[in-house]
Amino acid sequence: MSESIRCPGFQAAGIAAGIKKNGGPDLGLIYSSVPATVAGVFTCNQVQAAPVLVSKARVAQGKAQAVVANAGNANCCTGDQGMADARTMAALAAAELKLAPEDVLVASTGVIGAPLPIGKIESATPALAAALAPEGLEYFSRAIMTTDTVPKLVQRRGEIDGKPVTLVAAAKGAGMIRPDMATMLCFVCSDIQISALLLQQCLKRAVDRSLNRITIDGDTSTNDMVLVMANGLSAARVQTPDHEKIFQALLDDLLTDIARRLVKDGEGVTKMALIKVQGASSNAAALRIADTVGHSPLVKTAFFGEDANWGRIIAAVGRSGVPLDPRKIDLFFDHVQLVSQGRWCGPQAESQATAVLRQPEFTVTIDLNQGQGADSLLTCDFSVEYVRINADYRS
Amino acid sequence: MSESIRCPGFQAAGIAAGIKKNGGPDLGLIYSSVPATVAGVFTCNQVQAAPVLVSKARVAQGKAQAVVANAGNANCCTGDQGMADARTMAALAAAELKLAPEDVLVASTGVIGAPLPIGKIESATPALAAALAPEGLEYFSRAIMTTDTVPKLVQRRGEIDGKPVTLVAAAKGAGMIRPDMATMLCFVCSDIQISALLLQQCLKRAVDRSLNRITIDGDTSTNDMVLVMANGLSAARVQTPDHEKIFQALLDDLLTDIARRLVKDGEGVTKMALIKVQGASSNAAALRIADTVGHSPLVKTAFFGEDANWGRIIAAVGRSGVPLDPRKIDLFFDHVQLVSQGRWCGPQAESQATAVLRQPEFTVTIDLNQGQGADSLLTCDFSVEYVRINADYRS
Repeated sequence: MSESIRCPGFQAAGIAAGIKKNGGPDLGLIYSSVPATVAGVFTCNQVQAAPVLVSKARVAQGKAQAVVANAGNANCCTGDQGMADARTMAALAAAELKLAPEDVLVASTGVIGAPLPIGKIESATPALAAALAPEGLEYFSRAIMTTDTVPKLVQRRGEIDGKPVTLVAAAKGAGMIRPDMATMLCFVCSDIQISALLLQQCLKRAVDRSLNRITIDGDTSTNDMVLVMANGLSAARVQTPDHEKIFQALLDDLLTDIARRLVKDGEGVTKMALIKVQGASSNAAALRIADTVGHSPLVKTAFFGEDANWGRIIAAVGRSGVPLDPRKIDLFFDHVQLVSQGRWCGPQAESQATAVLRQPEFTVTIDLNQGQGADSLLTCDFSVEYVRINADYRS
Repeated sequence: MSESIRCPGFQAAGIAAGIKKNGGPDLGLIYSSVPATVAGVFTCNQVQAAPVLVSKARVAQGKAQAVVANAGNANCCTGDQGMADARTMAALAAAELKLAPEDVLVASTGVIGAPLPIGKIESATPALAAALAPEGLEYFSRAIMTTDTVPKLVQRRGEIDGKPVTLVAAAKGAGMIRPDMATMLCFVCSDIQISALLLQQCLKRAVDRSLNRITIDGDTSTNDMVLVMANGLSAARVQTPDHEKIFQALLDDLLTDIARRLVKDGEGVTKMALIKVQGASSNAAALRIADTVGHSPLVKTAFFGEDANWGRIIAAVGRSGVPLDPRKIDLFFDHVQLVSQGRWCGPQAESQATAVLRQPEFTVTIDLNQGQGADSLLTCDFSVEYVRINADYRS
């Protein structure tokens, strides 16, 4: 915690409420001193946790002033009691903050199916509200961690018409992550002035370019949400298309940074690989190939083994369902070409490619040489540790 | 090798030709004393190995008399040289057997992209042909193994109009397996009399019910094929719909047995789970859900950890893309109901479900309670050993 990350008009806190078995911080709160314009993107899983359903309805109103979040319990598949608990969790925070319950958004992450320990949350909420502080986002970002090993908290500053604007994002991973619309929990605070409609459009675009272009294990959580609160306390107002471009770029950059950090801290991750597909017949075809390669257990275990096993990559390309000519494929690991026109470039290229794979980050470029379509996906390796973490998660 | 498995009129052999690094058997041959009716099912991967292309064209003729197969090298992504090598491999065997080259089918499995060591195969083919023997299928089944730990060789006997008929299948797994049409290498010998057209229809149906209903890691190989050779040496001839039913049942049973053995010996597998989906709006919807659950890394690692983490199963059901009402889902581990109408049945059910998971084989039944659609998929756990095997595969 070197220089503390803050956003004008926002206070935050994170404390231990006894929800996590390990006694770590597990309850967080963000509060804006004035009502904020809000936008949200939610999981597309048809099984949606109670807090997702509650927050989705409240975000639709376009305004909120706080968000309360817990780790250690997903409050999902918990029926009517779960819905009541999610509303109570928000109402408890609202009472401390002297807000209407509908002004408080709510999020949960953790084990699916166990009842939310609402009693523990009730006991802890007064202390949580009392701990609110401008520098509290660091604590908040720790309170939403599950299998994450480091908190994810990033900041961007920009200017609109010469007026400074700040954006801050706090997020958690680190498994059950797939680019199927939203991913994990992510909370963005900004002091920008913007309409709810425009904020929602900008958020959707930014998520599509960042959080929807990463994968860890291909599973989509029941609890994913990305929320933005813009309290308008800066003088900067998004009014023209140029302003929108500046804000969009800041938000894209902020969430891309978060996305990279989520992959880097993915469960058991030792390698981060950008799968870049180009020369496809369309962008959609390129994304489908990147998705198939980026999710292949055999490709991901080869990354873990630092094995330039390009045959597995070509096999994944071939099963992607996209029509293609295997004899046209070029394949690169960073700048090393390993496959030319569908064929191996030989032992020297292979030893150079193996050296690329020894790095913690690298790019795999697949060129189909059949069109202008391109897209990419950020993925990671599949390690022994990933299996260990997920075999033991609830024990 | 207790009682040796044979099929009338067939001889087989398997020897070490020096293709595998470990010096194990890696070249196999099956020979029918008379021309056989053939049928085949091949990988739907768009990247297809040279032997797949060669054998596919020859199977289309409906007749063949031998098949030569190697492990240790897939002869895939090997360009024109690979095609020439596959044809040479068949021609070498044909010369020894005094057959036309087109009467010999060819198959390869192993690392993708390396040139086939055709010189080693040329040197070894005379010894291979000399080793042919009626009891040689056991040796053949060992020569096609890659990461398999046990050979897969099964037999079924039946009667048609009181006349005995024999079916034998030899197959290899054990990774890159997914139910996308055909899987792995599988060779079926029979002495039945049947037309090529009917044999192809029966094979396709049998594969759909057996080898296309298993998954190990969701990757589809470039080299998969299932070949059947029926030499007609029994007096049993498939002529009526009743005969067809009997033969279909024998073939289904044979390939289902092979399919189970492939999963059981899948890379790093410690648990085998049948994912049964019922009460879906259609059979296709049921299969899609079974497929999503059966491929979920989080579900598979929970099986490995013997953790009755039903939340992950429900989350996978929810992301399958099939419209459903989460509040209607029932979930069973064998006969233990763990979820009723979308909600947890409590700690007692959970401890019983955990006991089910401690077994090496179990059934997960997901009932959507919204229709009559049903299907199932046989899957396995995702273990630390799977990652180790695949991180080190080429080293």
